Amino acid sequence: MKKLVGACIFGQSGGPTSVINSSAAGVFAEALKQDCVTKVYGAAHGIKGMLNEEFYDMGQEDMKELLLLKNTPSSALGSVRYKLADYTKDPTDYERLLEVFKKYNIRYFFYNGGNDSMDTCNKVSKFMAQSGWECRVIGVPKTIDNDLYGTDHCPGFASAAKYIATTIKEINLDAKVYDTGMVTIIEAMGRNAGWLTASAALAGLDGNGADLIYLPEVPFSMEKFINDVKAVCAKNGNKCIAVVSEGIKFADGKYVSEATTSATDKFGHAQLGGLAARLADAVKEATGIKTRAIEFSLMQRCAAHLASKVDVEEAFKAGQKAVKLAVSGVTDKMVIFKRVMKNGKYTCVMEPMALELAANTEKTVPQNWIIKDGTYVSKEYIDYALPLIQGDSKAPLENGLPRFAKLKKVSGKINDKK
Amino acid sequence: MKKLVGACIFGQSGGPTSVINSSAAGVFAEALKQDCVTKVYGAAHGIKGMLNEEFYDMGQEDMKELLLLKNTPSSALGSVRYKLADYTKDPTDYERLLEVFKKYNIRYFFYNGGNDSMDTCNKVSKFMAQSGWECRVIGVPKTIDNDLYGTDHCPGFASAAKYIATTIKEINLDAKVYDTGMVTIIEAMGRNAGWLTASAALAGLDGNGADLIYLPEVPFSMEKFINDVKAVCAKNGNKCIAVVSEGIKFADGKYVSEATTSATDKFGHAQLGGLAARLADAVKEATGIKTRAIEFSLMQRCAAHLASKVDVEEAFKAGQKAVKLAVSGVTDKMVIFKRVMKNGKYTCVMEPMALELAANTEKTVPQNWIIKDGTYVSKEYIDYALPLIQGDSKAPLENGLPRFAKLKKVSGKINDKK
Repeated sequence: MKKLVGACIFGQSGGPTSVINSSAAGVFAEALKQDCVTKVYGAAHGIKGMLNEEFYDMGQEDMKELLLLKNTPSSALGSVRYKLADYTKDPTDYERLLEVFKKYNIRYFFYNGGNDSMDTCNKVSKFMAQSGWECRVIGVPKTIDNDLYGTDHCPGFASAAKYIATTIKEINLDAKVYDTGMVTIIEAMGRNAGWLTASAALAGLDGNGADLIYLPEVPFSMEKFINDVKAVCAKNGNKCIAVVSEGIKFADGKYVSEATTSATDKFGHAQLGGLAARLADAVKEATGIKTRAIEFSLMQRCAAHLASKVDVEEAFKAGQKAVKLAVSGVTDKMVIFKRVMKNGKYTCVMEPMALELAANTEKTVPQNWIIKDGTYVSKEYIDYALPLIQGDSKAPLENGLPRFAKLKKVSGKINDKK
Repeated sequence: MKKLVGACIFGQSGGPTSVINSSAAGVFAEALKQDCVTKVYGAAHGIKGMLNEEFYDMGQEDMKELLLLKNTPSSALGSVRYKLADYTKDPTDYERLLEVFKKYNIRYFFYNGGNDSMDTCNKVSKFMAQSGWECRVIGVPKTIDNDLYGTDHCPGFASAAKYIATTIKEINLDAKVYDTGMVTIIEAMGRNAGWLTASAALAGLDGNGADLIYLPEVPFSMEKFINDVKAVCAKNGNKCIAVVSEGIKFADGKYVSEATTSATDKFGHAQLGGLAARLADAVKEATGIKTRAIEFSLMQRCAAHLASKVDVEEAFKAGQKAVKLAVSGVTDKMVIFKRVMKNGKYTCVMEPMALELAANTEKTVPQNWIIKDGTYVSKEYIDYALPLIQGDSKAPLENGLPRFAKLKKVSGKINDKK
């Protein structure tokens, strides 16, 4: 096959994770090695930076700093939540993108994100194909929600799960330290999929985890919830730890958190939050027991100091794989992970899958993995998640604190006036 | 000096920390080595367990598990918030304690906690002395608030500070990831002293920390706060990270958080919390910029996976020192830390100080360390805190998660009926 010679551009999109920069490092390290890739651009704020010609020349960076990205949380290039229109209805953005791609001879497009970002990636791929501009498009998965279709799991999920499991083990010891009652309600992310919230069950492997786990896959009943908490309290000296997903909904489909906020983001998703405090209040009112509401907030997705080594390495390899696939002629695909268990030992194989299969899908936790009347997850979940959270991988310490990557961010923009 | 032969009892009291169990490990390891110590008891829930004859025979534990306590957060024996009465007014508890001490021939009393616990320790010490029961009493300091009088710093503070500084570095990257405005308000503990909240400044050593830091040592004005945030936003593209202490008060002495809760604990302290959400709402209303409230909640005091090695080791040595002092004849003292800087290198020396000096005191951050019109701390604070957060020390991993100590907790109670 003829080698496609030209520049590549990489963008980060959607909510950041502890390891999304590890995928960036994989893309950059691999792309900078490839002879057919003439320039490696990193877009500021994903697709928005591409439209605005705001991108960086990654070849100007020190490789040492690029590799520090492996352990640097959040999206180093800046992220974006920007929904591309249907190009049959409004081609403005697409035409602008094509203009930029032609100007910079961009022949490789790599996009790192979740469902919405794969929608963007898919639309760009289809438009470039029909426009006749040869450009290979590969999506790199990323989401702590772990809800992308077609892949065994998503980079970012395992590190967030490790944060949640570790932190709940610690909180379990703290919240039970007095000989008085205490109901602790913890809110975890994951939107409409319970994968991440379910990781609370990993904390319970030695018996010191959460008592109750509520996933969005099961309709939530306030009455049942209060009764569940009461039952645990009756057994455990009024001590109970309940973990709830931000995305739990009542049987009528309304988010339980919605009474506390009515804001929506640009994709029309309800903005979730404040749920733990609301449930804690309900428990206190119904039982009189002291409560504490804890929200893992941004920490669960940016605690790179607690990242899973498996996750960091897989995220890096997914970035490398995207470049290798594109250079070898593959396009219009997302990198997916396939799990291979050999003699009980976990390994992961990466393959391409059609982009449109990943775009805008939501993979949820199987109903038969949810047990104890909707308050816990089964051994299948543990077996699924446990291999993914193994090992530590963190930034080197400087002054006792993590030394994250410092990029020069040299503009890659061509100044037309010169 | 004649050796005092008898049993020792150790209790944990007040809010737990990441390293309070490291002090317990130090006490147990040292006491179990001493010939004159006939039994080593660990009290369940501090003074309450002593009054109720609920304590464990620590000699029955595996030394390996006792040493795992060094990296196990929270109070493994259970904690308590129990205020002893003035014994001249109500001697009930004291007489009961004396009865127990005589029954078990307890000649060494070690108590690990903060101001309130040192008050308990001081009262027990004075009562035993006047009652004629020879019992050596040594307090071991502990508090993330770092507000104990007479000691350079307190075990527990540095690990909480390291958690805050590390986490703010991570949050800083996450909260600034979009090209849209975002004001993040973070609430840290510390009660009426700003030591812990000030550790946010450590995150800013490489320029990626908090923009504004509010300590309880400076009267809080909502109007000034809003203006401070507006000024940062005007410079930084509507991005701002402000860290506030739970204990900030208005000029009239009222807690800023008080509008959100009116509960008080058993010592009559107001229970603080919900402050970040309240300030975030105020900022949103005044500026229209998106806000996020983050409460570090229990995590800041129980994140043992992020403990400072210096802190873990010092906490252990403080426990050992308490036993060594008591065995050598010292009583009625608390172990204090003195900082020694040699050729720019930090070391710490431990000495005894009269217990009554520590009881019920509150040491706050010096006013001249608070700069930028009450919104940041000076280099003196950085120089003070930085040596304390150095190095990592964490539990070994099992299943990718921390393996904490598992104690047998064999009852030490003598069954009178047998």
